[in-house]
Amino acid sequence: MNTVTCDLTVSLDGYVAGPNQTPEEPLGEGGEELHRWMFEEPEANAEAVKGILESGAYIMGRNMFAGPGAGPWAPDWRGWWGEEPPYHAPVFVLTHHPRPPLKMEGGTTFHFVADGIESALAQARNAAGDRNIAVAGGAETAAQFLSAGIIDELRLHIAPIILGGGARLLDGVGKLKLEPTETRGTGLVTHIRYRVTR
Amino acid sequence: MNTVTCDLTVSLDGYVAGPNQTPEEPLGEGGEELHRWMFEEPEANAEAVKGILESGAYIMGRNMFAGPGAGPWAPDWRGWWGEEPPYHAPVFVLTHHPRPPLKMEGGTTFHFVADGIESALAQARNAAGDRNIAVAGGAETAAQFLSAGIIDELRLHIAPIILGGGARLLDGVGKLKLEPTETRGTGLVTHIRYRVTR
Repeated sequence: MNTVTCDLTVSLDGYVAGPNQTPEEPLGEGGEELHRWMFEEPEANAEAVKGILESGAYIMGRNMFAGPGAGPWAPDWRGWWGEEPPYHAPVFVLTHHPRPPLKMEGGTTFHFVADGIESALAQARNAAGDRNIAVAGGAETAAQFLSAGIIDELRLHIAPIILGGGARLLDGVGKLKLEPTETRGTGLVTHIRYRVTR
Repeated sequence: MNTVTCDLTVSLDGYVAGPNQTPEEPLGEGGEELHRWMFEEPEANAEAVKGILESGAYIMGRNMFAGPGAGPWAPDWRGWWGEEPPYHAPVFVLTHHPRPPLKMEGGTTFHFVADGIESALAQARNAAGDRNIAVAGGAETAAQFLSAGIIDELRLHIAPIILGGGARLLDGVGKLKLEPTETRGTGLVTHIRYRVTR
């Protein structure tokens, strides 16, 4: 069976986005700071970044594809990532608004799944071959997969900031059995890999 | 100036104690699990444990000395640690109920400070000489010192458990400037040292 991974950057107080998310500020107030480690220290964090983008298939929530608070998206919305998204693999987008697959450059195709997370998982397994499946976010989708016991490895990237409000990853996920298997970091982030068992 | 440190064990969802703290279960439901790393892996975590107990003076909140929800303590209450507490140094207990100093075996003396955190800090500085001062807890006291910008080094010991409720360390502490300076861990805990700047 494919390993199901989930990479998320969180603040030290557990938020994946700051308060007051808007279309202009999709990560909320202060939320951009979460990702400084990726942009300011790409070399020191190369392995962590590589881990985020080496899967054979991805699953993401509709907010991650279309933005927080967006209504039914415009039929020509093609995601946030330009014409060549960084996934280079099939991406299964959970949605209540089905539409035909959207083939981008470089191997990324967005497939829209309207019949639930188990269906998205089954389709991702078919697509991934021997490779990992990544739950790419956002927080609500990650929490849903964690609660359902589907995620095998949770990789937290803890940014040393306090957001003080926003969307929290772990509220309401219930008891999980977690074991840290690897810890490393820089001045802008601490990476912890957790094995999640049922 | 002495370095002011604060060691705290937190769950992955940020709680220093579980829900429903009682005199019988002072760490709340599931809270005992937080400290498995100390008791089950003393050798692997020897350095972290040493860091908790090497200071020249300690400051603690009254709940840590007397227990959560305790009223004015019985005048003969001598703390939780038996006749030879592990501090081997002066301990300044924040309280609204002053009482004479309590000299224990092995170098620990509890001093009761009724005039606030700055006074406790000044007295701890006098007592500590060149050594560190440790804010020993509980969560409320640690948060108060963090908010006041007094803590120089926050050492978090993150237990891989989800408590789902209880007392959270970082709620309401405001913005802090944190920089991780060291990260290590075992299968039961991840240790992160943060330099806190003002």
